[in-house]
Amino acid sequence: MLPHANLLKASEDLRRLVAIPSVSARGEKLVECAEAVRDLLAEAGFDTEIQQGDVGPFVIGEIGSGPLTVMIYNHYDVQPEDPVSLWHSPPFEMSERDGRWYGRGVADDKGEFISRLAGWRLFREHHPGPLPFRLIWLVDGEEEIGSPSLEAFLKRRLDGEAVDVCWWEYGEVDASGRPIILCGFKGVMAVELRARTAQADMHSSLGAVFDNPLWRLAAATASLRDGTGRILIDGFYDAVRQPAPSDNELASAPPYSLDSLMDATGAQRLLDGIDAANFYRAVNFEPCMNVNGFSGGYAGEGAKTVLPAEGAVKIDLRLVPDQDPQRIVALLRAHLDKHGFGDIELIVHDANVKPVRSAADHWFVQDAKAVLEECFGQPAIVQPSSPASGTAHPFVEQLGAEIVGLGLTHHGAMLHSPNENIIIDQFVRMIECSAAIFARLSERAYRMRQSSPAQPTHGETP
Amino acid sequence: MLPHANLLKASEDLRRLVAIPSVSARGEKLVECAEAVRDLLAEAGFDTEIQQGDVGPFVIGEIGSGPLTVMIYNHYDVQPEDPVSLWHSPPFEMSERDGRWYGRGVADDKGEFISRLAGWRLFREHHPGPLPFRLIWLVDGEEEIGSPSLEAFLKRRLDGEAVDVCWWEYGEVDASGRPIILCGFKGVMAVELRARTAQADMHSSLGAVFDNPLWRLAAATASLRDGTGRILIDGFYDAVRQPAPSDNELASAPPYSLDSLMDATGAQRLLDGIDAANFYRAVNFEPCMNVNGFSGGYAGEGAKTVLPAEGAVKIDLRLVPDQDPQRIVALLRAHLDKHGFGDIELIVHDANVKPVRSAADHWFVQDAKAVLEECFGQPAIVQPSSPASGTAHPFVEQLGAEIVGLGLTHHGAMLHSPNENIIIDQFVRMIECSAAIFARLSERAYRMRQSSPAQPTHGETP
Repeated sequence: MLPHANLLKASEDLRRLVAIPSVSARGEKLVECAEAVRDLLAEAGFDTEIQQGDVGPFVIGEIGSGPLTVMIYNHYDVQPEDPVSLWHSPPFEMSERDGRWYGRGVADDKGEFISRLAGWRLFREHHPGPLPFRLIWLVDGEEEIGSPSLEAFLKRRLDGEAVDVCWWEYGEVDASGRPIILCGFKGVMAVELRARTAQADMHSSLGAVFDNPLWRLAAATASLRDGTGRILIDGFYDAVRQPAPSDNELASAPPYSLDSLMDATGAQRLLDGIDAANFYRAVNFEPCMNVNGFSGGYAGEGAKTVLPAEGAVKIDLRLVPDQDPQRIVALLRAHLDKHGFGDIELIVHDANVKPVRSAADHWFVQDAKAVLEECFGQPAIVQPSSPASGTAHPFVEQLGAEIVGLGLTHHGAMLHSPNENIIIDQFVRMIECSAAIFARLSERAYRMRQSSPAQPTHGETP
Repeated sequence: MLPHANLLKASEDLRRLVAIPSVSARGEKLVECAEAVRDLLAEAGFDTEIQQGDVGPFVIGEIGSGPLTVMIYNHYDVQPEDPVSLWHSPPFEMSERDGRWYGRGVADDKGEFISRLAGWRLFREHHPGPLPFRLIWLVDGEEEIGSPSLEAFLKRRLDGEAVDVCWWEYGEVDASGRPIILCGFKGVMAVELRARTAQADMHSSLGAVFDNPLWRLAAATASLRDGTGRILIDGFYDAVRQPAPSDNELASAPPYSLDSLMDATGAQRLLDGIDAANFYRAVNFEPCMNVNGFSGGYAGEGAKTVLPAEGAVKIDLRLVPDQDPQRIVALLRAHLDKHGFGDIELIVHDANVKPVRSAADHWFVQDAKAVLEECFGQPAIVQPSSPASGTAHPFVEQLGAEIVGLGLTHHGAMLHSPNENIIIDQFVRMIECSAAIFARLSERAYRMRQSSPAQPTHGETP
C-alpha cells in the first residue's frame, strides 16, 4: 500500500509541472520547467546538471555506480494546448474528475516522469545508502518537436559510454487495464511530393494538351504501394530484419482482437489481406506508407473545371529495423525518377527517426513483466514493437542500450489533444511498479558484483 | 465606315446593360436585365416575349419569315464580380481605357449581344421592310449557372420546330487579331470521388493495418488515364465520331503554334506524346480528363503523421461527339467497381452538357468566313471545335441546328475574372460583320425563294 505522503507529494509535484506551459513548439517556459525538473531530481538525491539543447535544455540526474548502467528517458516539454475551447478545464491547471487527473502533460510526459520519481523516493525509503548501479536520468525539453539535438547531445555528453537498459519515456495500459511493455518503436519519415505543371491555373479544356499536376501526384502516390499495403519502391525491404523467434511467438498471440481495434479506432477498411490472424504481426513488424494529406486545385462546394498549376501530397513511412530513413529517401527519389516522375519535387520534412527493436526476452523485460503483473494484478503484455515511433535509435547506436517502454499511458489519455488525462489508480500503481523495478535493479547489481567480484564496473577504476 | 450614331447608341446600350448586376449565381437583377434586353429587341423591331426560367427569365425576339430559320443565342446574365478588390474600375460601370471597355459582362455576353444588335440596326437601315427569313433571338438568363432550364424551355416553346443555324453566343479573336469561327464545343461532365475509411482521423501508425482514403483516391484517379492522357475507362471511346475529312484538314494546319500556346498559358508540361504536329488535333478532337481538385488530411506547413478518415477528388471530363455524359457516368462507376474501388462514392455534379460539332464546310461558316475576313482584314480561322464547352446540344437535338460561334471575345478578355474587357475596335468590326451577315442571310433567303418558289417555307402555309 502506497504511503499517503508519497502520493500527496507526487500529486503536488505533478500539479507544479503541469502549471508550467513548457510548449517546445513555441519555445515557451522551457528553462523554467527544466529548472523545476532539476530541483526535483536534486531533492531526490541525484547529482544534476542542465545542458543546453537547440531549443530547450536537457536535464540530467545521475546517481550510483556498479556493474549495471540504467538510463531513464523522459521529457518535460509538452504539445501546444490548442484548441483551448475544447478543454473542459484549463489545460495548464491539473484538475481531478472521476478518478482522473486532467491537464496538458499530465500523461505525456510529466505524469510518467513524476510516477517514476515518486517510485524512486519510495524505493529509497527502504533502500538508503549507496546505489549499487549507475542510474542516469535524462529529461529532454525537445521531444515534442522531434528531439532535434538529442543525438548530438548524447554524443557530446556520453561519448564512449555504455548503457545496459534505457527505460523509455512512456508505456501503455490497455483498455482492460493490462500493462503493456513496448520492446521497440518503428522509425518514421515524413516527406512531401510537389508537382507544378504551369505558372498559373488554366481552363480545364487545355487538359487535352497539357498534363495535370494532381493526376501526376495521384499516379506517383498510387505507384508507391499496392492494395495490401506492400511498398513498391525497389529495395525498400532489403534491410528489413526478420523478427526473432521469441518476437514471432509474441506476435502470434494478439493481446486484443482486430474487432476491438476497429471498434476503438472507428476504422472501417482493412488493407487487402489483413485479417484477425495476421493484423498483429503487421502492427509489430510491417513497415507502411500513409498519405497524410493531399491538396491542390478547387476544394469548395460543387464543381469548378480548372486545370490547377500545382499540388502537393504529404506522406509518411513507418519503418522497421534495420531500415534507414535516409536510405529510403534515396530509394524513393529513384522510384519517382524510374516511373517517369522526375519532375516531382521530393521535400523531406523528417528522415531522422530510425526504427529500434530490443530483445523481448531480455532480463529487464522479464523483470518488468513480473513487477507489472504483481502491481496491476493482471497479465502484462510484452509487445515486440509499438506501431508508433520515437527518437530512440541514438540510445541504441551510441550507448548500446536496450529500449523498453513501460508506463501509465492509457487508451483514452488524449495525448496531444484537449482533455489529456491519466487514471489516478494507474498513476499509483506505476509509483509502486517503479519502486519495485529500482529494487530489482539493485538486487541484480548486487548479484552481479557477487558473481564477478574482481571485474571492473562502470564508473569505477579497478 | 460605321456611322457614329450607331456606335454611340451601341456603346450607350452596352453601358446600360453592364450597369445592371445581373449575377445569376446570386439570382440578382435578372428580371430587370431581361426587361432591358426585351426593350432593346422591341425597339429594334422584334416581336418580344419574356418566359420564366428556373432562375432567370428567357427573352425571345422574333421577326421575319421565309425559307430559312436562323437563331441567335446570347445571354444577359453574368459571373459574380469577386474579387472586387482586383478590379481597376467598378465592375458594374463601363469604363474606357486604352482603347478598351472594361466591366463585368462587357464581353461575356452583353458585348456580344449588343454588337450583333447594333449590326442588326445597321443592316435594317439599308434593308427595311419584311425580313425574308425567320430570325429568333434567344437571350438566356441562366447561362453562367449552366442553363438549367434551357433544354426544357426549348422543348416547351419551340417543340417540333426546325432551325437551320444557331449563331452561338460568342466567338473569338486571336492574339494577332484573326477572327476564329467555332464549329463545335466539347461536352463536359463534372464528378467527385469520395472515400471514407474510418469514422475519424487516426494515428498514422495504424496504416500498417487499415487502408488510407487518400491512397485509394490516388489509385482510383491514376487508374482513369495514362500519361498520354488516354482515358482507360472501358468503352469510353466507343461512341467517338471520327472527324469529317474537312475537319481533319482544318486540324492539320494549326492557326497558332504549340510554343505560342505554352507562352500564352504558362503551361510547362505536355501530355506524353503531344507535340507541335499533333497538339491542335487534341485541342479539337480529343476527350480528356482533368483533376480539378484533391483534398483530404493535413495541408498545413511541414508534416503531420495522421491517417485521415476521408478525402475527395473533383474531376471533369471533356467529351467529343457523340459521347454521352450520362453514359460515361455509368462507365466510370463500372470502372471503379471493376478496379476494386466499389467503396468510392461517385457524386455527379454535372452530366448535362453534351458535345456538338457542326460541319465546318456548312454555307453559314463559309459566308461568315468571307464576312469576317473582309471586316477584320485578316484571314479567318475555322476551328472544328472549341476545346471548351457550352450547353449547345439542345439546339442540335431538338431543333436540328448547326452551331456556329463568331464574335469579339479576345484572348485577354478576362472572362469570369476581374477587369473583363473588350477591344473597342473589335466591337466596331463585329457590328459591321453582324450587319453583313444579316445581309447575306437575306440574300440567301431571297435566292432560296426564287429557286423554289412553289415550296412552302417555315412559318407560312402554302
